[in-house]
Amino acid sequence: MAKIGVLGAGTWGMALARMLSNSGHEVTVWSALPQEVDELSTTRRQKNLPGMVIPDAIKFTKNVEEACENKDIILFAVPSVFVRSTAKTAAPFIPDGQIIVDVAKGIEPDTLLTLTEVIADELKKDGKHDNVHYVALSGPTHAEEVAKDLPTTIVSACEDKEIAEKVQDVFMNQNMRVYTNSDRLGVELCGALKNIIALASGICSGLGYGDNMRAALIIRGMAEIKRLGLKMGGKEASFDGLAGMGDLIVTATSKESRNNNAGYLIGQGKSAEEAKKEVGMVVEGINAIPAALELAKKYDVEMPIVFAVDAVVNHGADARKTIISLMNREKKSEMVI
Amino acid sequence: MAKIGVLGAGTWGMALARMLSNSGHEVTVWSALPQEVDELSTTRRQKNLPGMVIPDAIKFTKNVEEACENKDIILFAVPSVFVRSTAKTAAPFIPDGQIIVDVAKGIEPDTLLTLTEVIADELKKDGKHDNVHYVALSGPTHAEEVAKDLPTTIVSACEDKEIAEKVQDVFMNQNMRVYTNSDRLGVELCGALKNIIALASGICSGLGYGDNMRAALIIRGMAEIKRLGLKMGGKEASFDGLAGMGDLIVTATSKESRNNNAGYLIGQGKSAEEAKKEVGMVVEGINAIPAALELAKKYDVEMPIVFAVDAVVNHGADARKTIISLMNREKKSEMVI
Repeated sequence: MAKIGVLGAGTWGMALARMLSNSGHEVTVWSALPQEVDELSTTRRQKNLPGMVIPDAIKFTKNVEEACENKDIILFAVPSVFVRSTAKTAAPFIPDGQIIVDVAKGIEPDTLLTLTEVIADELKKDGKHDNVHYVALSGPTHAEEVAKDLPTTIVSACEDKEIAEKVQDVFMNQNMRVYTNSDRLGVELCGALKNIIALASGICSGLGYGDNMRAALIIRGMAEIKRLGLKMGGKEASFDGLAGMGDLIVTATSKESRNNNAGYLIGQGKSAEEAKKEVGMVVEGINAIPAALELAKKYDVEMPIVFAVDAVVNHGADARKTIISLMNREKKSEMVI
Repeated sequence: MAKIGVLGAGTWGMALARMLSNSGHEVTVWSALPQEVDELSTTRRQKNLPGMVIPDAIKFTKNVEEACENKDIILFAVPSVFVRSTAKTAAPFIPDGQIIVDVAKGIEPDTLLTLTEVIADELKKDGKHDNVHYVALSGPTHAEEVAKDLPTTIVSACEDKEIAEKVQDVFMNQNMRVYTNSDRLGVELCGALKNIIALASGICSGLGYGDNMRAALIIRGMAEIKRLGLKMGGKEASFDGLAGMGDLIVTATSKESRNNNAGYLIGQGKSAEEAKKEVGMVVEGINAIPAALELAKKYDVEMPIVFAVDAVVNHGADARKTIISLMNREKKSEMVI
């Protein structure tokens, strides 16, 4: 059985912590918020997963050292905007050679780094973390379903096969099937960019369009993510796989997706600001647009759906006209990536 | 403007006939059922698309010759089981060099031919049809949405680029975006096999599983269709594209899909016979299983989801145990097709 430190106590971190604990692993959860630690350790409930009981065996701590020392795996499960600061806080207590698994998804706007790259960038600063192993763990995974032991699949992505398999072994159980993948970059790009496509899907629903258009956006949206990702060095199997197309399907078809909902409101005629206010939470798809545009420019890749979403969300373009103009672009072959 | 003969007056044939007529093309529709021809030409309604008005410009005929002579395109839109007999009936009136577009999806069980191959097989019998052009037109396309001019995308698949582009030109309009594709075989395999995966998706919903499992089935289901299709000579872009993954998404997530619904009932504990009776229409996914098993054997390809569906549907295996056993197969990498 493995010793696992979980950094972050949100829905996804806690759903995984419970699952790992129930598999017999020794789990210690740290949160940056002392109040959250107190609440979780006394109520044994995560407030956004009200039906889930937190096993007594899970230990909570306010001391990041306790979550990092002597662990087989350190799991980064903080919101994407806190990944760098968390890495900085934890760095002094993370031994070289450590396996770090990240489940946050995003691209840092200024650096255009994926989130395992952000952690690496931060850890390497002291010159003592040259041999840390980074794994991206990603897939079509509603936390609510994992919290209920509903069957779920996920990808353990690391260029080092042995490390990917080690993480596979720890996370796999009767309800969680883990596939290994050697393309960490591709897996992380998918996780970061899919929300923009989900936003487009929501916009189309808001305009009254149907399943045909949604499927078209999912397919052509992934085609442009893949076009970019392959140029950046990602591998095709990742874009077609669980963390690529699989996660996009869940995000773009789920009624609980914030990106989908924000898009719906925009399609119905609200401004991006109004939509964000109404959704009331971070809309990652909107936040991801600048990095996507930068990458499209840097790698000289055509991304018409991302550009259309940017036009509607950030520049007040008419949603219907913009979508129809996507339909009326020059004729294309499907065989050309 | 083109002259188009449509063979078959079901929902998909009529939705396309209306669309083509409204684009300015000259459309003649034939049905094998004289009563249907009378009804359509007088009521100007297709009974399963009650909201759609059939344009006056569309001509109906009981005479297959009239639908075949002097046409730029002949569109096969009959149910898959009638494709061979329709080809036989129409053969004497189809000139060599004709462009034939097929929208029916399936694999003929005895011959393992796709449906454009079935048409070719039948037409070639008289030795006078060696230069007919066959195009598979396929994608994520609910007929109901096309009948309402909702935005839709589709693939025009033909190994001859010029022919694929000719069909693209005829079918493309403001609401219908057509992509060309050179891989007719891959496109047709997807259309035929996706219903088995939709059945699996329905079974999982019936068992109470969630979005995570559905996405997993869609991704891993397409992985096994692709594994088979690549061995048969199909091209990767087709499986990842609109007629592959796109159509699978629509079929496996739509509440109106018969395959999905039949699977749901089976997941809830009904027998395949009971489910078929309750759905009350042909469940293509069930019909496609024998051909899929034959192809898997012939090409020596692992298709665990197809095998699991067969076990549950045709051999009384327990649905829950069978799905769980899928989750607990040996550990895999996502990078190995």
